[in-house]
Amino acid sequence: MASLPRKHLFDLPEGVIYLDGNSLGPLPRGVAERLERCVHKEWGEMLIRGWNDAQWMDQPARVGNKIARLIGAPEGAVVIGDTLSIKVYQALASALEMRPDRKVVLSDNGNFPTDLYMAEGLLRSLGRGHELRTPPPEEVADAITEEVAVVMLTQVDYRTGRMHDFTAITQKAHAVGAVMIWDLAHSAGAVPVDMVANNAEFAVGCTYKYLNGGPGAPAFIYVRPDIAETVRPALSGWLGHEAPFAFDLGYRPGRAVERMRVGTPPVLQATALEEALSVWDGLTMAEVRARSIELSERFIREVETRCPDLTLLSPRDPMARGSQVSFGFSESYAAIQALIERGVIGDFRAPDAMRFGFTPLYIDEGDVVRAAEIIEDVMTNRLWDDPAYKARSRVT
Amino acid sequence: MASLPRKHLFDLPEGVIYLDGNSLGPLPRGVAERLERCVHKEWGEMLIRGWNDAQWMDQPARVGNKIARLIGAPEGAVVIGDTLSIKVYQALASALEMRPDRKVVLSDNGNFPTDLYMAEGLLRSLGRGHELRTPPPEEVADAITEEVAVVMLTQVDYRTGRMHDFTAITQKAHAVGAVMIWDLAHSAGAVPVDMVANNAEFAVGCTYKYLNGGPGAPAFIYVRPDIAETVRPALSGWLGHEAPFAFDLGYRPGRAVERMRVGTPPVLQATALEEALSVWDGLTMAEVRARSIELSERFIREVETRCPDLTLLSPRDPMARGSQVSFGFSESYAAIQALIERGVIGDFRAPDAMRFGFTPLYIDEGDVVRAAEIIEDVMTNRLWDDPAYKARSRVT
Repeated sequence: MASLPRKHLFDLPEGVIYLDGNSLGPLPRGVAERLERCVHKEWGEMLIRGWNDAQWMDQPARVGNKIARLIGAPEGAVVIGDTLSIKVYQALASALEMRPDRKVVLSDNGNFPTDLYMAEGLLRSLGRGHELRTPPPEEVADAITEEVAVVMLTQVDYRTGRMHDFTAITQKAHAVGAVMIWDLAHSAGAVPVDMVANNAEFAVGCTYKYLNGGPGAPAFIYVRPDIAETVRPALSGWLGHEAPFAFDLGYRPGRAVERMRVGTPPVLQATALEEALSVWDGLTMAEVRARSIELSERFIREVETRCPDLTLLSPRDPMARGSQVSFGFSESYAAIQALIERGVIGDFRAPDAMRFGFTPLYIDEGDVVRAAEIIEDVMTNRLWDDPAYKARSRVT
Repeated sequence: MASLPRKHLFDLPEGVIYLDGNSLGPLPRGVAERLERCVHKEWGEMLIRGWNDAQWMDQPARVGNKIARLIGAPEGAVVIGDTLSIKVYQALASALEMRPDRKVVLSDNGNFPTDLYMAEGLLRSLGRGHELRTPPPEEVADAITEEVAVVMLTQVDYRTGRMHDFTAITQKAHAVGAVMIWDLAHSAGAVPVDMVANNAEFAVGCTYKYLNGGPGAPAFIYVRPDIAETVRPALSGWLGHEAPFAFDLGYRPGRAVERMRVGTPPVLQATALEEALSVWDGLTMAEVRARSIELSERFIREVETRCPDLTLLSPRDPMARGSQVSFGFSESYAAIQALIERGVIGDFRAPDAMRFGFTPLYIDEGDVVRAAEIIEDVMTNRLWDDPAYKARSRVT
């Protein structure tokens, strides 16, 4: 029984081929109704009692468990909340405390900028002479030395889909005594991840991309269970306290990863996310990955055959590539505008990438071929060469 | 024309007198429909284009401006996002950088615990020998000395409603060269606040209490405009960057208070909040405050007359009290359970407070008298003396 695609589980607009689920996943069908129920029946009728009666208080751990399954983490090792930037900060601050005598944080210059910005802000605040090193991604492995306190990388490159060697890098980090943090922003729901096998101390990620949690959906954080009770939270908020409603004056960290909770959880966003995660029921990431590779390979073949002016920016080896494909073109910003106007939604990433995400939950082979035909039309007929497209403002 | 109450703007359950809007405000009538539109028409149909076409990207500043009006702040001085705990951390981290040679953070032992926890975590991370002092609230003014780097207080006490002298404390802080941070969690939408006149450097607050933004609604932060461009954010996320979509490797703080944005904004929560704030259209905080005092005074009079076993924990002078009234009673937890079961929703705060919030938007004199009658029934007939109430779990 083919369990993919599952288009019937999504509210996709007519006539759109959505290849931007790696930026914002589409609306899963049950979410609107679930959210309406949360608003009317929980907030509206239960009012303050919703914290108990609708189990809002446990939601961050409950939703965390649903994500845990998709990243190969055990129950009780993941919580949701805040934004990915905040979760990066929490992981890095705790990791640095585990290696007080080392002064180097190693990332790479392909990391998503906010990870680097948050690190920069933290290291500046600490004022202890830490150094943030950002070599090119292909030189990271060699840069893991005994000076390094923390290796902090995003597994899948946001522009090209290039994947780091997840296992080898963690092993190398541990071999030199460094702490490993993986950002799974473009991994969770896109490629199989096994946090237990990987053995990294921390992982973080977002849920509005391949997990379809909606705009501004909360982030997640994983802490390896054997260290979770010794990790010291820098952002020690009341909901990460052992007993939030005792209202003690002093902070005592909560149980395991729950100490990574900070403030009052975003119940509306978390409810949308919780419902959105049900589209994964009964699916394995291995199935998703196999279909994602088929779709991406077909897309590359079709586009390269039809559009000689486009250059593949993503790794050609599917095993070294996440669930997205990028092509380079000097006018890629305008070309993406032309495509969007013709129903193929991808996105632009500076300086010159046309980026397309493949999510086998709602994309099939027919969509891929049709998208390639439309890209061919835009390229062959120079439809991108329109001042209106070039002038369009670049917010996202 | 009496503009209060505005009960018709809220979906309040039949038979409930809601005196807990100081913890979670009730559902404003337009919110469900607005959120449904955001889910279907924006997320569902615009998909990634919502960031531009539905103006999600500007929402934190746009909603911030609506809050600015309610706290006497100018346009462009407030943004929303994250949780109050995170905003406290941001304000304190930036404030400490403004006074690098001083080592004392002064708060009080009546502050809401998460403010103290976040300060504790920050000071520990910094590891520079800072000290967090928490004298009793009535001793704070005298504790403001030239050692103090930052004075960080919550204006209205969460348990008793006691108010700090907003003007005098800021003046004293400035007189000794300290930076002032006010937490307006129980002030915004409850009492008139004039940040311009007050002249404090920072203010933070939450929006799910008197501002009725819904469970987990985002927090807000105000930075005084004349210093906003020099403040250095500790949580330097990409949406606080001068040009987030340039994807530069280095952080450059954004314009004014926008640098206090961190990660991707919670669009669903922010949309609920934005709509919820429309219940304030055409109202002044002076009107709200006047009615709130009338209601609270009537409540105290009624309860004290009817229930001699209850002790007023709140200040008797309405000018020294926010928009809530607390009574002490040895079995107040059970008594609150009995009240909730009879339709009067207040809440319990350790160790022995029965807490009632007054929000003239949807509470009127009739509600106050009826609530007092039900409290009298619970007290006179010892309805609190029920093992089921005493055993009920204490999540909130």
